Amino acid sequence: MSRFFSAKFDRLIPYVPGEQPKGKNVFIKLNTNESPFPPSPKAQKYAAEAIEKTMLYSDPECFRLRAALADRYGVDADNVICGNGSDDILNFAFSAFCDEKTPAVFADITYGFYRVFAEYNRVPYRIIPLKDDFTIDPADYFNAEGTVFIANPNAPTGIALPVGEIEEIIKNNPENIVVIDEAYVDFGAVSCVPLTKKYDNLVVTETFSKSRSLAGARLGFAVANKELITDLNTVRNSTNPYNVNSITQAAGIGSLEDREYTDENCRKIMQTRKQTEIELKKLGFVFTDSSANFIFAAHPDHPGGEIYKALREKGVLIRHFDADRIKDYNRITVGSDEQMEKLIQKLRCII
Amino acid sequence: MSRFFSAKFDRLIPYVPGEQPKGKNVFIKLNTNESPFPPSPKAQKYAAEAIEKTMLYSDPECFRLRAALADRYGVDADNVICGNGSDDILNFAFSAFCDEKTPAVFADITYGFYRVFAEYNRVPYRIIPLKDDFTIDPADYFNAEGTVFIANPNAPTGIALPVGEIEEIIKNNPENIVVIDEAYVDFGAVSCVPLTKKYDNLVVTETFSKSRSLAGARLGFAVANKELITDLNTVRNSTNPYNVNSITQAAGIGSLEDREYTDENCRKIMQTRKQTEIELKKLGFVFTDSSANFIFAAHPDHPGGEIYKALREKGVLIRHFDADRIKDYNRITVGSDEQMEKLIQKLRCII
Repeated sequence: MSRFFSAKFDRLIPYVPGEQPKGKNVFIKLNTNESPFPPSPKAQKYAAEAIEKTMLYSDPECFRLRAALADRYGVDADNVICGNGSDDILNFAFSAFCDEKTPAVFADITYGFYRVFAEYNRVPYRIIPLKDDFTIDPADYFNAEGTVFIANPNAPTGIALPVGEIEEIIKNNPENIVVIDEAYVDFGAVSCVPLTKKYDNLVVTETFSKSRSLAGARLGFAVANKELITDLNTVRNSTNPYNVNSITQAAGIGSLEDREYTDENCRKIMQTRKQTEIELKKLGFVFTDSSANFIFAAHPDHPGGEIYKALREKGVLIRHFDADRIKDYNRITVGSDEQMEKLIQKLRCII
Repeated sequence: MSRFFSAKFDRLIPYVPGEQPKGKNVFIKLNTNESPFPPSPKAQKYAAEAIEKTMLYSDPECFRLRAALADRYGVDADNVICGNGSDDILNFAFSAFCDEKTPAVFADITYGFYRVFAEYNRVPYRIIPLKDDFTIDPADYFNAEGTVFIANPNAPTGIALPVGEIEEIIKNNPENIVVIDEAYVDFGAVSCVPLTKKYDNLVVTETFSKSRSLAGARLGFAVANKELITDLNTVRNSTNPYNVNSITQAAGIGSLEDREYTDENCRKIMQTRKQTEIELKKLGFVFTDSSANFIFAAHPDHPGGEIYKALREKGVLIRHFDADRIKDYNRITVGSDEQMEKLIQKLRCII
């Protein structure tokens, strides 16, 4: 920190992304929930075609991409905002819908960035513990007196809350915004996007990073009623109106036109998740009921940190979190069948 | 605005980017200072190669890109931060180095986003008028009691401040940060990057949007001493650690390896600027001494808004600003020789 850094950030501790190994990647990388499949051929084609025109600014309104998203999700283009990853839009939501009088409200065990977004935007936040089984009690969020952020499925647990229970939360917060972060929704959970037509206090964020294999291209979006999208655009246009580059806009359109490719990859990943869970069970692991592209697993005889380290030494990266309630667990991305077989082999040596 | 939008943004008026025509582009587009030349062949090649791996996250540290930038500018990689355009980094600087006690200080006529960044980050700002001839008096910025933001060359005037005068401003602000925004520096001005080795209160921001023909790819960077870069990274990693996508990182590296291509394009644009200025003079225009890829021109017999509208009707887009002191002027991007010949033809009909 320099002597010039604003004192308002005295307590700010940035988010720490999962490790990205440098140089030749000799690791089996199961630590950041990336897809084992390349982006769709159409996404690649459109992206490649866009490159030669990058001397021109990207469309700040993401007009064609929003139209394609609107078509895909059965909403109007005015109900959609695009961002440089869904992190971008979540940050906008903390900025637009929280302030000193409107705290952020989220679970103790959830996406770690929520706490950082709250600290960065200098808004108070209220933490609601998950139940002992890591599930959410919807009633805990009724009349939240703040802006609610729920990852569904939750990270790093993978547990999904049924849409009916989320609707109860939305209904019981007529004076509060509810943000549902659906980064992992395509792997077995049900999306709340249709509810955005019914409720004026709901924002649903999604990403192209996971199911659409575009983590490196950085593309996220949110769906909400038009007025909330206007608010988010006010923040966007006051910080970085060109936040989505033109190559990524093209890739996004290509990916949406290739929906069957995405759906097929999601089916494969869910199948691999199931198979991996069977193998992990044989090894004595316990795990949550995941609707995401990762498994949140613990072993009764081995601390989570020990398994993480042992796997790392054997060339497999998974994600370990130090937080007290979950330190026995590791979050393991569901990769290809081949990667998961290697994981199980290594675990057999360790356990 | 929705009923949920935070009252803290009551007065926030977002930045309005230059018009991006939709559909088939029939306009001669001289309104957003884009390059008439495509990105370098190497930038295009590296970008295309990166696409198939975008299922993996981009390197949040931009390790290879920062190394290439450090090599190009004769600094260490620790002196460099990359962003999603230089707007991204300028916003970080307003956040990191301004607060209630540390206002932002900038000119009345300069990049319009500074005022928006200040409003968005809710920091006070002090406006220093340019002299009558639109030049900066360095002494106006001595002991600024705030964080100084100077675009050099300035926008939309194109006028460059000599490095010696900037150094005087830096020297006379030992307790304040000075940010020099060099978006247009490659078209005839001299960069302050070497001064970052000498002064711990200097941040220089640059972009790949103009001279490197990568506006649509969104890539900017800043050079400063290591401590200031750490501060900017704290903000970056608290909002969007993956702010630069992997295709753009690859394009940036390719562009840096193809320096001769960039240099040659800059020479061509400066030559075209000179030729266009000769023609504008013949038509009775007056203009500032531009060191940028645009010309800031007024005509004694025709209001700026009138010329802007007349050109638009004839299919040529230039940029007009409503602010009082500059409403007689228009900012005209220097495009290709062919584009500028057409501009002059149309102006001959109008004048």
